[in-house]
Amino acid sequence: MSPVDGLVGVTIGDAAGVGPELVLGCTRADGVVVYGRVDLLRAAAVDLRRRGLAAPDPDRIIAVETAAEARAAAPSQLPVIDVDVDVHDALAADAYPWGQAVACFGAVQHAALVQAIDDAMAGAIDAICTAPWHKHRLADAGLPPTGHTEVLEARTGADRAVMVLAGDVLRVGLATAHLPLREVADRLTTAGIVETATAMHAGLRDLWGIEAPRLAICGLNPHAGEGGVLGHEDASIVAPAVEALVASGIDASGPWPADTIFPRVVAGRARYDGVIAMYHDQGLGPLKTAHFGEAANITLGLPIVRTSVDHGTAYDIAGTGAVDRSSFVYALQLARSFVARQR
Amino acid sequence: MSPVDGLVGVTIGDAAGVGPELVLGCTRADGVVVYGRVDLLRAAAVDLRRRGLAAPDPDRIIAVETAAEARAAAPSQLPVIDVDVDVHDALAADAYPWGQAVACFGAVQHAALVQAIDDAMAGAIDAICTAPWHKHRLADAGLPPTGHTEVLEARTGADRAVMVLAGDVLRVGLATAHLPLREVADRLTTAGIVETATAMHAGLRDLWGIEAPRLAICGLNPHAGEGGVLGHEDASIVAPAVEALVASGIDASGPWPADTIFPRVVAGRARYDGVIAMYHDQGLGPLKTAHFGEAANITLGLPIVRTSVDHGTAYDIAGTGAVDRSSFVYALQLARSFVARQR
Repeated sequence: MSPVDGLVGVTIGDAAGVGPELVLGCTRADGVVVYGRVDLLRAAAVDLRRRGLAAPDPDRIIAVETAAEARAAAPSQLPVIDVDVDVHDALAADAYPWGQAVACFGAVQHAALVQAIDDAMAGAIDAICTAPWHKHRLADAGLPPTGHTEVLEARTGADRAVMVLAGDVLRVGLATAHLPLREVADRLTTAGIVETATAMHAGLRDLWGIEAPRLAICGLNPHAGEGGVLGHEDASIVAPAVEALVASGIDASGPWPADTIFPRVVAGRARYDGVIAMYHDQGLGPLKTAHFGEAANITLGLPIVRTSVDHGTAYDIAGTGAVDRSSFVYALQLARSFVARQR
Repeated sequence: MSPVDGLVGVTIGDAAGVGPELVLGCTRADGVVVYGRVDLLRAAAVDLRRRGLAAPDPDRIIAVETAAEARAAAPSQLPVIDVDVDVHDALAADAYPWGQAVACFGAVQHAALVQAIDDAMAGAIDAICTAPWHKHRLADAGLPPTGHTEVLEARTGADRAVMVLAGDVLRVGLATAHLPLREVADRLTTAGIVETATAMHAGLRDLWGIEAPRLAICGLNPHAGEGGVLGHEDASIVAPAVEALVASGIDASGPWPADTIFPRVVAGRARYDGVIAMYHDQGLGPLKTAHFGEAANITLGLPIVRTSVDHGTAYDIAGTGAVDRSSFVYALQLARSFVARQR
């Protein structure tokens, strides 16, 4: 893919976590522009190199004003759009503050996402790929301690963002996501499942390029309720959603017992292009078990393309060179393939 | 292992499901005695052979009165202890009733388990390995529509049976098992987690022969509650259980986010001999995804050894030769290895 084929805005995330190590592995040749701060990334690179760890020459990390300017950078350069947050004090110490709670980094991670969203909405970049951030740092910076998804929804005006985790074999959409387990059964609705599955269907068709996607819908309860012995919601909430999806022309089936549908797909015993899980751990346990590292997060239902790593800031290993970049690399590859398919 | 090394009582399960095909693949050389009925198994074998499918010569399926008599059978024979249920009418038709709801098969599956339990309690057999049964057939036969585990608990007088699913890499114990999802948070207790993990620890040590087992305890909520943002039970219920386990000398840690602890163990990034899941799909989705087919069910907390297949009666493929015997074979191997280790 040549540099003119699309530009992915990569957000730095929490600069005290593994974000800098993730983005410093990229160059303009990877079709990226970073949203963050040049001084932060140069300081991180200097610190890593001083300790013999892999990082680019700081001179190759260049400031650009706009995404258009980033397109003109040399292939070996890493173009960065600076957000307007003062991080001078955080970089004043001898060592880079890996794994530390730095309040101004909370402001940076938020400003970087907001700028990337605005540029994507304006068409200046073609997709966003996000490094992990830390909710507590948002609070430290006086911002609401929320997730990327909520900011993306609010700022793009999307009705319902759908969280998808995907590897090469399993692609899982979540009908509910970040809820306490005790709230799941009451918050699950037929309309919500239908919206999730409909967004998943459109994403599989338009982004993954699967002509006639087949969806499996998990049950909520063990054994999908086992005929009502293990809960009524599979009959009263999930089954009507499957019927509505089929009536709307979507190839969907279920409710399937979650503990058997995932292994059947992974083992090639059932061909489903996507599986809709009713809640977080039901879907992400099997997904991450099947695709350790080699999976990424995709937000569907937005007017823009957004992918993300599937892990957190990993303060415990930040700055040690131990981070596994494979989820980030997969997320970036997915974003680029989605962009290429949509052009 | 020579035939005198131990005898595993294999129960037939629902004879209209895949049970007959599972047990007909065994002989006395596998260290087994079947609890079921000779007439049923011979009829199933005749039917399978007539259609060109694998099954033993019916003459090799022999009736024995007791487990002691089974020990004296020839290696190529399949010794069967008959339960006292009349199945004549069910076998009167031309074809064997694969996949059909046959009420007297409900009585057979129950009587077979009861006899096997009594023989195991009396020391006549060394372990039980169960083929799948069908709860609705129990109801059809006028019995409570319950699971194997409940019958095992009641008849052996065990306080708390613990359901474990295990493959060669992951071994998962369930703190709660067959509950509607909406009841899980209220039914989960610190004492229950401690009892589950303690039984798991003893099983890993005594049955699997792991000298100093390490246990990972999952959180209940996504991200193990994320510091209380996603539910309070990880701090109020799970964390105190981990503390109590550690205080009792068990190497336990947690609460861990379920969607990351399973993949870490499977990928070899974390060494835990057992993982305690808080509920059914949280544990069994990852387990079965990691070990498609090559996993079995083990009931801990009983005075006897019991293993089982990890799947159901599979009426849709019963009698077609399509059943995958790998979980049954794994369950039988585990039972035999447990017996050998305990002698």
